[in-house]
Amino acid sequence: MDKILRVNTRTNDIRSEACSTEALRLGGRSLIAHLAIKEIEPNCDPLGRKNKFVLVAGLLGDTNVTTAGRYSVGGKSPLTGGVKEASVGGSAGRQMARLGFRAVVLEDVPDNLQTNILVVSKEKAEIITAPECKNLAVRASLHLLRDQFGEDAGLICVGPAGEMMMAGAGVATTDKTGVQIRFAGRGGMGAVMGSKGIKAIVFDGSGVFSEEAYDRKALKAANKELVKILMDDPKTENRHNFGTPAVLAVCNALGILPTRNFSGGQFEQVDAISGETIAELINKRGGEGRKGQPCIKGCVIQCSNVFPNPEGKATVASLQYENIALLGSNCGISDIDAIAELNNLCNEVGLDAIETGAAIGVAMEAGVIPFGDSEGAKDLIFQVWHGTPLGRIIGNGVVITGKVLGVRRIPAIKGQAIPAYDPRSLKGIGVTYVTSPMGADHTAGNALELASIMNPRGTEGQVEASRRLQLRATILDSLGVCLFIRPAFVEKPDLIAELLNARYGWNLSFEDVQKMGADCLENEQKFNTLAGIDIDHCDVPEFTRYEPLPPHDTVFDISKAEMKRIWSIKPIKGQF
Amino acid sequence: MDKILRVNTRTNDIRSEACSTEALRLGGRSLIAHLAIKEIEPNCDPLGRKNKFVLVAGLLGDTNVTTAGRYSVGGKSPLTGGVKEASVGGSAGRQMARLGFRAVVLEDVPDNLQTNILVVSKEKAEIITAPECKNLAVRASLHLLRDQFGEDAGLICVGPAGEMMMAGAGVATTDKTGVQIRFAGRGGMGAVMGSKGIKAIVFDGSGVFSEEAYDRKALKAANKELVKILMDDPKTENRHNFGTPAVLAVCNALGILPTRNFSGGQFEQVDAISGETIAELINKRGGEGRKGQPCIKGCVIQCSNVFPNPEGKATVASLQYENIALLGSNCGISDIDAIAELNNLCNEVGLDAIETGAAIGVAMEAGVIPFGDSEGAKDLIFQVWHGTPLGRIIGNGVVITGKVLGVRRIPAIKGQAIPAYDPRSLKGIGVTYVTSPMGADHTAGNALELASIMNPRGTEGQVEASRRLQLRATILDSLGVCLFIRPAFVEKPDLIAELLNARYGWNLSFEDVQKMGADCLENEQKFNTLAGIDIDHCDVPEFTRYEPLPPHDTVFDISKAEMKRIWSIKPIKGQF
Repeated sequence: MDKILRVNTRTNDIRSEACSTEALRLGGRSLIAHLAIKEIEPNCDPLGRKNKFVLVAGLLGDTNVTTAGRYSVGGKSPLTGGVKEASVGGSAGRQMARLGFRAVVLEDVPDNLQTNILVVSKEKAEIITAPECKNLAVRASLHLLRDQFGEDAGLICVGPAGEMMMAGAGVATTDKTGVQIRFAGRGGMGAVMGSKGIKAIVFDGSGVFSEEAYDRKALKAANKELVKILMDDPKTENRHNFGTPAVLAVCNALGILPTRNFSGGQFEQVDAISGETIAELINKRGGEGRKGQPCIKGCVIQCSNVFPNPEGKATVASLQYENIALLGSNCGISDIDAIAELNNLCNEVGLDAIETGAAIGVAMEAGVIPFGDSEGAKDLIFQVWHGTPLGRIIGNGVVITGKVLGVRRIPAIKGQAIPAYDPRSLKGIGVTYVTSPMGADHTAGNALELASIMNPRGTEGQVEASRRLQLRATILDSLGVCLFIRPAFVEKPDLIAELLNARYGWNLSFEDVQKMGADCLENEQKFNTLAGIDIDHCDVPEFTRYEPLPPHDTVFDISKAEMKRIWSIKPIKGQF
Repeated sequence: MDKILRVNTRTNDIRSEACSTEALRLGGRSLIAHLAIKEIEPNCDPLGRKNKFVLVAGLLGDTNVTTAGRYSVGGKSPLTGGVKEASVGGSAGRQMARLGFRAVVLEDVPDNLQTNILVVSKEKAEIITAPECKNLAVRASLHLLRDQFGEDAGLICVGPAGEMMMAGAGVATTDKTGVQIRFAGRGGMGAVMGSKGIKAIVFDGSGVFSEEAYDRKALKAANKELVKILMDDPKTENRHNFGTPAVLAVCNALGILPTRNFSGGQFEQVDAISGETIAELINKRGGEGRKGQPCIKGCVIQCSNVFPNPEGKATVASLQYENIALLGSNCGISDIDAIAELNNLCNEVGLDAIETGAAIGVAMEAGVIPFGDSEGAKDLIFQVWHGTPLGRIIGNGVVITGKVLGVRRIPAIKGQAIPAYDPRSLKGIGVTYVTSPMGADHTAGNALELASIMNPRGTEGQVEASRRLQLRATILDSLGVCLFIRPAFVEKPDLIAELLNARYGWNLSFEDVQKMGADCLENEQKFNTLAGIDIDHCDVPEFTRYEPLPPHDTVFDISKAEMKRIWSIKPIKGQF
């Protein structure tokens, strides 16, 4: 995992180069930030020749550490205009890492859009043309690639939305079984990949032996400790049984569940779409339905599901909280089967379901279709697929949708849709949305986990909380592990250094790890400042500052000045 | 002209206040910059509660100085995200000035869109509801207002595009005869006015006596000298006979005439749309056709026309160069009658014809309709009117159109369409587009007039030239006079101070006038820096830096570093 593969998508020139000493110390999000600040012109057109599409393995990407193997995609985002990192599970990350590549960088763009596939194997890396994949849905694309390259190949692709360079497009991947369809969804990185004319990337790791860790025994021991803490944590069992949908009832109780384009924080039909209902339906319907599935080999949490229709046939895998909230309550839709179908449609078209759900909510506010109209919502996603004018509007995300349709209440920060946590009644996440280089992203520092220990509607301490959570997220996304293993690192922060030291033979302390995270955030902010989208130029949407959110009738009332303080707050020594 | 009228469009509260001492020294563009930096939050939503729609009379607004009486509209632009000023002739500006108002400021927004009219007379200022005007075309709206408020009333309105808050919407006005429909077109200020729920503003100056100049005799003498220089200048007669369309053949010869979405700089059917052809057709067709019309009382240049259809019925007044270029050659359309109809349709819907022509060109590149399809182009503008999804895309300007339709070649700078001068072969205007706080605006410092005395395709001296031209434009737009009287001021810069001193009893030198212009530019840039759109964050479109423009095969090759030098260049003493 000491090479970078560079692909010029204009000339199809491919070369492998050794990682710099600096890059060897970085992975996932931190390596994206490093490459962005070094190689991407901050004011370039995100879909133009100067942007790069960067695919990076996590620092633990080639290990068997639980949940490791997630990878990150990044570059300049067509939504935020800043640097973006989106992380995802599936099997491709580990394959890339095992082939020795810490990063794959797609450079330049072809003059005319292409449908090419980048195939990386032990022997070579090459670009093959694949006109048969043009505008092919995600599932069909992945199946076709599995047929061609075998079940063990790591697969990454964009759907029609990415090929059409829509800013709401994500990057899709799958697990070893091909059942789970997962997305590095946020930030429109699918459009960037599409702009390069690369429909898919295949990592064929056959015949490659895993790189040995520096101290295999120590790594195994550290992982064992990590797993033990996780298994002792009651949240793990809850996640295994109910997955992320468990959070829906919690968010509804807190009054932060986006409802009808963020006009309310509680949904009167919450029971119809809750995690409990979903678990019950999966049990009752049987068939292809599953709970407690892994999205990545070696995960001990296994929070994914396969949601079946009434006949037991899989509708979508996995059905997750954020998507249920944005496509469901936020659109006034309470039919969980319809929500699952909408989610599946987003997956098929290659759309970020969060961005798309928010866009549909805004279209509903504009009167394009009424709130609650699930058939109309499905039609909108089909229109994205077909590239109709209305579909192209929706597919370009919530800000474009609001602007074009003349809607003032646009739930977005830094150009990106607010995910499933309304910042008016969970103020810590509002601070993250505004101050994080990632914009409105629920994985960049989510204050939900602190809602039980501090007043989520108070202003006190939220900036400090966001600071801590953002650093934490940055570290996890640099290791390439799941956010859900954080309880282990909270309990024993030194575990992170132990894992890295065992893998690489380093001599890091936890403070060094914190520094890596802080440096990453600093690089990202430097990039965004150069791109003109730092905190001085963004805030929560205006309506959240004066329109009280039911039921708590809160507005977002943390001042810009207070939020600007965030980067002067020093991380607390020894605290993850 | 020492009062400011403030209208809260949420509460309908109206109050008149005295101008501050500072504001009394400013007018037009310079007063907009002053008010923007003082009163508008640079990062506010341009269509939200915190933006203001500012209507300002020029410093000479209530005088009979030739071409004076033009007024400016401004605020934060929904296209550029920076401060914007757009200037226009017609009769409303002088009426406003004579009613004693230097500025009218529309503040806040109503929760739900309204169709209101602000009526200002000697007795009072009031808001009346006018549901009958909802989505009414511009001409019909103006006729209705003329019927209601009399022929002498100064009228300003938005069309359906402004009411729908489309970022390509301009602000319409008319002359005393009601024949000329003129636009403060650029920057989407029609959307800002529309966001305030104000469909129209009526200045009923009946019974008001003109304010006396401080030294009426001196003013008259200065104006006489101004007129004499103008009448001696051969350009004046050319403008009178051919109007702005005279420039078309010049631009074609220079290779800067936008052709088929800026893919060429010369149009093979240039003769069909040239100024000479237009003048000939007006002569031949007779009927309502006219050349040499004024857009404002007291103008001695009178460059406007009324372009008739083959039956002699007026199609559009006035048919101008930029609109012919963007709706014509840029769309591959060579039928001058079709171009005139397209221009008229833009006027009726209340669209900036430049922004809209550029958007249609991009839609043609996307394959929505083919280049040259004038019927298809008309249909697109009708779609804007009807608010269809495709129409809303086009109506929101060229950047939204390009993004939504997935086109990479978007001819825009700072979010605004490049007007009828391709910067690759007229590099001085490229410098203006990039460095001017106004973005790509042909009135902000147009290097065309220097094309005969310096190499328009060379890089040498372009930054200095743009510096001079921008300062000049700023001063003219602050006086509220037409750009076309600049030859008089070039010949005798002191005339400007003489005019102002005679009107106000001041004791300005030309250097003081230069300082006013420079201060205005500084305020605007300060605003834009705070809004995150200063020169660090913008450039010419990427394609103009690598795609050679036929026939001269030029790219835009003035570096950002070179352009950034511009504001350190001191104005030359005594040079206008």
